[in-house]
Amino acid sequence: MGSAAPATGPGLKGEVLLIAFPGPHNEEWVTELKAAHPDLEVRWVTHSIASPPESFPPEIYADVTLLAGFWPIPAAAVPKLRYVQLFSAGADRWIDSDLYKNPKITFCTANGAHAPQIAEWVIGNWLMATHHFLPWAAAQKEAKGTRITNFASDSPGLRMGILGYGAIGRHAARLGQALGMEVYAHTRSEKATPESRKDDSYCVAGTGDPDGLIPTKWFHGSSKTAVNDFLSQDLDLLVLSLPLTKESHHILSAEQFEILSKKKTFVANIARGQHIDTDALLVALREGKIRGAALDVTDPEPLPEGHELFTAPNVFITPHISWQSAHLGDRLQKIVSTNLEKLGKGEALINLMNREHHY
Amino acid sequence: MGSAAPATGPGLKGEVLLIAFPGPHNEEWVTELKAAHPDLEVRWVTHSIASPPESFPPEIYADVTLLAGFWPIPAAAVPKLRYVQLFSAGADRWIDSDLYKNPKITFCTANGAHAPQIAEWVIGNWLMATHHFLPWAAAQKEAKGTRITNFASDSPGLRMGILGYGAIGRHAARLGQALGMEVYAHTRSEKATPESRKDDSYCVAGTGDPDGLIPTKWFHGSSKTAVNDFLSQDLDLLVLSLPLTKESHHILSAEQFEILSKKKTFVANIARGQHIDTDALLVALREGKIRGAALDVTDPEPLPEGHELFTAPNVFITPHISWQSAHLGDRLQKIVSTNLEKLGKGEALINLMNREHHY
Repeated sequence: MGSAAPATGPGLKGEVLLIAFPGPHNEEWVTELKAAHPDLEVRWVTHSIASPPESFPPEIYADVTLLAGFWPIPAAAVPKLRYVQLFSAGADRWIDSDLYKNPKITFCTANGAHAPQIAEWVIGNWLMATHHFLPWAAAQKEAKGTRITNFASDSPGLRMGILGYGAIGRHAARLGQALGMEVYAHTRSEKATPESRKDDSYCVAGTGDPDGLIPTKWFHGSSKTAVNDFLSQDLDLLVLSLPLTKESHHILSAEQFEILSKKKTFVANIARGQHIDTDALLVALREGKIRGAALDVTDPEPLPEGHELFTAPNVFITPHISWQSAHLGDRLQKIVSTNLEKLGKGEALINLMNREHHY
Repeated sequence: MGSAAPATGPGLKGEVLLIAFPGPHNEEWVTELKAAHPDLEVRWVTHSIASPPESFPPEIYADVTLLAGFWPIPAAAVPKLRYVQLFSAGADRWIDSDLYKNPKITFCTANGAHAPQIAEWVIGNWLMATHHFLPWAAAQKEAKGTRITNFASDSPGLRMGILGYGAIGRHAARLGQALGMEVYAHTRSEKATPESRKDDSYCVAGTGDPDGLIPTKWFHGSSKTAVNDFLSQDLDLLVLSLPLTKESHHILSAEQFEILSKKKTFVANIARGQHIDTDALLVALREGKIRGAALDVTDPEPLPEGHELFTAPNVFITPHISWQSAHLGDRLQKIVSTNLEKLGKGEALINLMNREHHY
């Protein structure tokens, strides 16, 4: 159940686009957009915590029909709005917005714009852990030539499991496959046919697995039995890249860490902190049930000063920043440009929001 | 000019194999070898610094015809020897040995057994540097939720240059390509045809680029002009994976770091320390001419206690250990098994030593 495609095209005559970008005005891009769509009016505001939507005069919004933005705007301020291109992969900030509840307004996501950097974060952590880079860096700091006595382990022949096979999981799969790992994918709904395994969201050229060809085995189902069956597949590396739902809350808890202890699976979570029961994770780390964990998200988040997870053994933590990339702005702009072109031609849009799942 | 293939086969009747492995006796493997070659006599010694070749009784060596080993043995001790399978990728330790100088003795290398772990070391370092993992780890240690303010950069669309396209360079290329990077290769001699771009040495399944299909552009030539031309190709990442020769000694010095400063190329050296002029490297790091360096080899090596390279900015150093892997023993054994089978059948061997280049 996606958003309805707006009946626009040919051309964008009479349309007013407001770009509310979480970054400085990009003249070059605006010039490009105007050249591509001479009939389109383009406005730019820089929304931020310091300058929220309501800090701009009403004239900025009143006749806007197309919005590319990050933060919600009150529906009353944009009575003519009919298309929203989000700069985020999910609708988290918009779920309570009247605009979002209006089924006549088309929403598209920035799905795929964050995949390269987040998948690199995952595989970088896997390599840092398996090659003992942190202990080696500590040895270097002593400037004495101290040697770490345990050998690195490398990846060929190992097995990687991916919970949630979206844009991020697909690029992590690509990297894992290049390392020589076997990839198993798990999705909520069954992907029985080649067609169902495809992902038509935005994909940076030369990355990911848009056709779903990499996994050698596919698993599905959100029941505990189904998930536990997947976790029992002798995984060396487990990547959590699924959306947070009621069913996926605490998808890893004591029982699951017990299952993972057989292979001492390394766990990477770049999805949401609440996917993991933090107390159970602390026990698993301390008792060596898992080889280690790389967490870009935690529960609670942000992790309060002095929280015991910071100093648990074999854990690497960043404060929800794996989406950051010097190339992110370019990718977000590419998605907007692509969909404006499709709007102008009346073609199907990419990254249409699923209003049931909110991503 | 490779080693001559020994005229053996069918079968290994009358042959005596001495496995002088730098590790404990592997019963399972020896049993496998005996099952595969019932007419072959198999002996095992564990050579090490504590128990060098000369510490074993002469009877161990006297009738040996096939040797799989790491350290040279005096030629007089093994008068019947005609085949040596080295457990190292190069002939460094053997160059002055009488056995090695005897053209009638066939030498094979362990080329390819170290490629997965060393290429992972390279790409792991690249990801650790571009995603600021070391500063993040330091922030985690403070347990305060401190944030690094500069964004990570990711790899799609970047360019990787590989100096020396052997087994290691090929797997690094595979990983770089998976990250979305363009790969340029540089080799000493020209590789103008598809056939010449192939590498028939041992390759772990699912790794590397045995057919030489990954690079989008090939460069060659050992002259300074040729090398400088390659270094001028706007490389984001440069991998040194070439053998050390008179021509490649100090292949990176002040002039070359000046060339690399245009893109602030990140330099990874897993070949030999003398490929880089250490003084020039120190200047390049301190003046930010390059983004950083990952060095598994240094000049001098080992790096003496307190050497200024240990604490130079943006450098990660390990003491020549990137070849270490929990899976190395299995791979070395696989190479020996493969060549014994080929010897028995009278087939062409893999990893035949190039007696001119010593690898």
